[in-house]
Amino acid sequence: MNTESPTSGSRAGRRRGGAKAGSTPTRTDTAAPNASQPPGTVRPGGRTARTRAAVRDAVLTGLTEHGYPGLTVEYVAEHSGVHKTTLYRRWGGVEGLVADALDLAGEDSWTPPDTGTLEGDLRALAREVYDTFSDPATAAAPSAFIAAAFQSERAADALRGFYAERFARCADVVRRAVERGEAPAGTDADAVVRAVSAPLFFRVLITREPLDEALADQTAAAVHAAVSAGAYTTSDTTGATPGGATG
Amino acid sequence: MNTESPTSGSRAGRRRGGAKAGSTPTRTDTAAPNASQPPGTVRPGGRTARTRAAVRDAVLTGLTEHGYPGLTVEYVAEHSGVHKTTLYRRWGGVEGLVADALDLAGEDSWTPPDTGTLEGDLRALAREVYDTFSDPATAAAPSAFIAAAFQSERAADALRGFYAERFARCADVVRRAVERGEAPAGTDADAVVRAVSAPLFFRVLITREPLDEALADQTAAAVHAAVSAGAYTTSDTTGATPGGATG
Repeated sequence: MNTESPTSGSRAGRRRGGAKAGSTPTRTDTAAPNASQPPGTVRPGGRTARTRAAVRDAVLTGLTEHGYPGLTVEYVAEHSGVHKTTLYRRWGGVEGLVADALDLAGEDSWTPPDTGTLEGDLRALAREVYDTFSDPATAAAPSAFIAAAFQSERAADALRGFYAERFARCADVVRRAVERGEAPAGTDADAVVRAVSAPLFFRVLITREPLDEALADQTAAAVHAAVSAGAYTTSDTTGATPGGATG
Repeated sequence: MNTESPTSGSRAGRRRGGAKAGSTPTRTDTAAPNASQPPGTVRPGGRTARTRAAVRDAVLTGLTEHGYPGLTVEYVAEHSGVHKTTLYRRWGGVEGLVADALDLAGEDSWTPPDTGTLEGDLRALAREVYDTFSDPATAAAPSAFIAAAFQSERAADALRGFYAERFARCADVVRRAVERGEAPAGTDADAVVRAVSAPLFFRVLITREPLDEALADQTAAAVHAAVSAGAYTTSDTTGATPGGATG
């Protein structure tokens, strides 16, 4: 799906295992904006993969409908068709179910945009966040995972891992920009890709303000300007820091 | 306290009404970094103010200890010494209690830093966020309010109001920078003050990554560079947009 949504694996999971049709579809499954999954990346299916995908779908549905405090193993059993004793044996309980749903979400083949310019790539990343959160259907699952992390340390750990892996993929955006001479050598890719998402997540999930596309573009333009000015270069690399990085 | 913490009112509330000593002190009360409250801004106390402050303290303690799903009117009654029927009559229930605790938190006299330079002010703002979240005691209450907003629409509304009011006060930072010629006329103050907080909130509450002071400084430096480059100027004001704001 995209950088932002912990549900990115939904589509891949369904292709991979073909979770049974009609089984509690998560609303996010039909709305993933990132279309292209290179065929070679789709793993062979099988009963285990199908079970895992069905369980993941039920976890997502439960989280988005009832929140973490309302999610129970009984609910997941009922909505996945997987027996409760199997769920307890393989996942341990609700925390394990949520963590595994996030792990599965991270196993897709999403790659960051490659528009040919740093500013284009940053704008595309920011717009993916905007697209995710401007539609209640696609916003529900990531919001539910993020909410769950306030209440479950295991969910928080899984969320940290999900985003670390997502942002690691985005390092290519900055690497290519450095190669093209659009960013100074030593630019902190981690900080750049997080900075382009953060103001949008902040407004929608922390300060509870509305988003618009202009805000996504402004955010991307601001990060681009800061990168160009050398504000994201790490101290021990290059002298190419025309401004902003020092106090 | 500061821009970031919805508990900013704690100190003012205690001064104002002098909530009874020994009553379930919230851990945040002793750690507010923003010391100076101009005397004229402290309202006269009284039984109503005392009651409200005691109730707010109990709400904060309950939220930080048990989270929103575990907060009950019974708990607040027990920890505030205010009768349950009074709580229901005045606040309606848990949602009203949480919303009013946030409203009260916003009624302090906090003003943004005024270091004499835009970069100094932005760094001071970013470091206040860092300070708040680097100490579990001061991080607990804002985290609990933000978590509550995922589960209560009234808490979300109150949180939106709290931050809107906080960031409105910060507009002075950008106004002064424009006056000093450090920022182009037409710089979007709202976007600037949010951008300097967002990456820190994002890491601590969304992606669940650790913070450090260098990250706060990097964030401030990046926003400063973007402001200098004109990336935050609104389109209809001035031609002083040397770069970044356009696609």
